[in-house]
Amino acid sequence: MSINDPEIPDIVIRRLPIYAQTLTYLTGEGVTTVSSSELGARIGVTAAQIRRDLSYFGEFGKQGKGYNVQFLLNQVRDILHLGHSWGVALVGVGLLGKAIVHYTGFKDKGFEIKALFDSDTRKLGGEEMGMTVNHFSKIPEIIPELGLNVAIVAVPAHSAQEVVDLLIKAGVKAILNYAPITVQVPADVRIRSLDPVAALQSMTYYLNPDPKARSRNGKHSK
Amino acid sequence: MSINDPEIPDIVIRRLPIYAQTLTYLTGEGVTTVSSSELGARIGVTAAQIRRDLSYFGEFGKQGKGYNVQFLLNQVRDILHLGHSWGVALVGVGLLGKAIVHYTGFKDKGFEIKALFDSDTRKLGGEEMGMTVNHFSKIPEIIPELGLNVAIVAVPAHSAQEVVDLLIKAGVKAILNYAPITVQVPADVRIRSLDPVAALQSMTYYLNPDPKARSRNGKHSK
Repeated sequence: MSINDPEIPDIVIRRLPIYAQTLTYLTGEGVTTVSSSELGARIGVTAAQIRRDLSYFGEFGKQGKGYNVQFLLNQVRDILHLGHSWGVALVGVGLLGKAIVHYTGFKDKGFEIKALFDSDTRKLGGEEMGMTVNHFSKIPEIIPELGLNVAIVAVPAHSAQEVVDLLIKAGVKAILNYAPITVQVPADVRIRSLDPVAALQSMTYYLNPDPKARSRNGKHSK
Repeated sequence: MSINDPEIPDIVIRRLPIYAQTLTYLTGEGVTTVSSSELGARIGVTAAQIRRDLSYFGEFGKQGKGYNVQFLLNQVRDILHLGHSWGVALVGVGLLGKAIVHYTGFKDKGFEIKALFDSDTRKLGGEEMGMTVNHFSKIPEIIPELGLNVAIVAVPAHSAQEVVDLLIKAGVKAILNYAPITVQVPADVRIRSLDPVAALQSMTYYLNPDPKARSRNGKHSK
């Protein structure tokens, strides 16, 4: 079975990092075996979902015996190439961009920011963590030079498509997008968007907007 | 049909904010009618998916005529209560927390940060955007006082569960979690995690880690 089997739904691939994270915590707690229902409870999916997800990658567990935590973790790490180190370009060095540069969680997990870009003349030539902030126009030069194929985009919505187009032309194949806009990419490029407002909105659906005077006309009395 | 129909899969609810965002851009571009395939291409899902998603909420489009953009936008906004304004507590005022406080996109979309919490004594009593930074221990007092039921958690992984437990006890029902850990919440509380490393890892699955010497053993020569 090919490891990049196109039949594996993307939604399953998206859950695998959460599996890796959770299994890592379990090993830290000294847990050696985990059932699909225990693992599901930790991750917030059903036991059936766990079994279905993992079935795409072969037989990891024995019926009634649960999964060997370390073995399963190694398998998931292998599938996701988690042992590999990736150089990353960061575009947008505003407040969010700075938080990203200084966040140690990326490098710890093999994602090392190696180039910074912005379009704000006040930021150009400045430094963050020993790296110079370059203008967007340097993307076509610097990204192939450093051989980067992963990028993080932390620019305002109105610049996002332009930046993404530049990155893709320069050879980037995986983009983490913080701009609150849906960006178009060709089929051979992966993009994931982290949009906090969209995440909040998908939760407020479940909340009662105003217990005293609930209305569905978008107005509220407060 | 009940608007909070439990039969509507959560994954559909998660896509609705993206629909709202995309439809808002379309109205801005003066587009009045959109087909399910055009909308799908914008959002990155199939036309069939669009039709299936929207069918949960009634009949929005006419066969062969596409959707009225403004009407569909109004409907999606109503379903998600997007006209409502929500007070939000922010826990964790580090670099990321500061970027969150200063990001205008929350307030613009009806999510107004109204209270700040941290555990770092160097930050306590300080101010951001006119709000005082309070200790975690004030959560049980301040959150019910302000009637907040939405919170953003931007603390390190090791504090996340403790903070989430405090928030839930204080009445919070929807949590946006930036800490890179899976947090346990009761069934009546919603949580969404934005984990940039997990998002990157779910994309590097599709990349060839080392074109010259591909291996699956987690080691690399560089």
